[in-house]
Amino acid sequence: MEKSKIGEFHFATEPYLLDFRGRVTIPMIGNYLIHAASHHAAERGFGFSDMSERHTAWVLSRMAIEMLEYPVMSEPITLYTWIDEVGRLFTSRCFELADGKGKTFGYARSIWAAIDVETRRPTLLDVAGLGVYVTDRPCPIEKPGKIAAVESDTQGIPYVVKYSDLDINGHLNSIKYMEHLLDLFDLDLFKTREVGRFEIAYQAEGKYGMELKLHKKEVGSGKYDMAICHEGKSICRASATWH
Amino acid sequence: MEKSKIGEFHFATEPYLLDFRGRVTIPMIGNYLIHAASHHAAERGFGFSDMSERHTAWVLSRMAIEMLEYPVMSEPITLYTWIDEVGRLFTSRCFELADGKGKTFGYARSIWAAIDVETRRPTLLDVAGLGVYVTDRPCPIEKPGKIAAVESDTQGIPYVVKYSDLDINGHLNSIKYMEHLLDLFDLDLFKTREVGRFEIAYQAEGKYGMELKLHKKEVGSGKYDMAICHEGKSICRASATWH
Repeated sequence: MEKSKIGEFHFATEPYLLDFRGRVTIPMIGNYLIHAASHHAAERGFGFSDMSERHTAWVLSRMAIEMLEYPVMSEPITLYTWIDEVGRLFTSRCFELADGKGKTFGYARSIWAAIDVETRRPTLLDVAGLGVYVTDRPCPIEKPGKIAAVESDTQGIPYVVKYSDLDINGHLNSIKYMEHLLDLFDLDLFKTREVGRFEIAYQAEGKYGMELKLHKKEVGSGKYDMAICHEGKSICRASATWH
Repeated sequence: MEKSKIGEFHFATEPYLLDFRGRVTIPMIGNYLIHAASHHAAERGFGFSDMSERHTAWVLSRMAIEMLEYPVMSEPITLYTWIDEVGRLFTSRCFELADGKGKTFGYARSIWAAIDVETRRPTLLDVAGLGVYVTDRPCPIEKPGKIAAVESDTQGIPYVVKYSDLDINGHLNSIKYMEHLLDLFDLDLFKTREVGRFEIAYQAEGKYGMELKLHKKEVGSGKYDMAICHEGKSICRASATWH
């Protein structure tokens, strides 16, 4: 059975998963995106299990989320996802979050690589196989780009990786990076403003017990660059632009 | 339309939501239970919105989870929930987690109160209205009971309540209490043993910026009592029995 290129997924916001403002959080949006990406891939023969059989796994390399408006309580969310580009080492997947009635909440872009699960090194992608699903549906947000280093200018907040932070590979869960970074901002900022764009680049795997430092620096009006470092070396860079 | 007394909900484990052992976590089970409780209540006219209209809200008072086996990857979960008892101030709701083919993963019991959202004080329950749904389906685990104070015997690990910890009421999310408490255990324990019973009693609301202390003490072989304290006073007690 031929699968269409664009995947469509439906979510309902749950009161107990919303933040103190009654809005869907960025980590929760991240969960929706990963859910959609996983299922879209699995339904087309390159999901978690298919990759496992080949001793490979998908690794999220970068993600950028731009929200015009955040879904609130009982608002149904329709999430569209599609493959934008496939290269030898990276593939780009886009997302649109909408209410299913013509209103767009926002867009997201993600970059994925595949690794060999034994060596943890990148492996070549099945360009022909994945290429079948590439489509040029527009995703009108900037691609994830370079984020400046801020760790030398800031002191950093210590954080030790815990059991709840770990994913099935035993590494710091991609969503938990987002959670810890957003927690660097004071609650007053969440009360008066909203993150318009959040971008993250995963560089290395966080492991149990690792002593991390979380860095944040305002680099423009409402624009913050961030880093998570281990022994002075960044394992992740991120930026948040508040509107 | 008459609704049956027992609610049935279905979940699929997602690879990216499992722990490092590939198992569903206790906080995730907590999310499933709250999802089922919310929907079961809403479908019978006493959900979040119905309560809000009367300026009231459900507050989770206690929860006990006993697992015989933890669901693993791609295992479908069928969750049954029903009301066990209704009193003037508290109602008891039970759960059974199963695979839908006759295997039981575990059971849970929860105790709920309703508060007035303005005064944050308990309000009387609609005993007659809720009583219609009471059923005597068996839930063969012990009721949540008294948990000994451990804060005077242990030093406690400091924790400050952050943005990501807050629920829609602006208080420390009930699931986050579980997450922070489980993070007190060393990863080696998770590698060799499993939590057979987890029990939690919520006593006071954690708020943003609150400086908490997380306490844990082994009180028997594999049995730990825990507490979360603010300024020396417990806001939550819990216990975990490892098998």
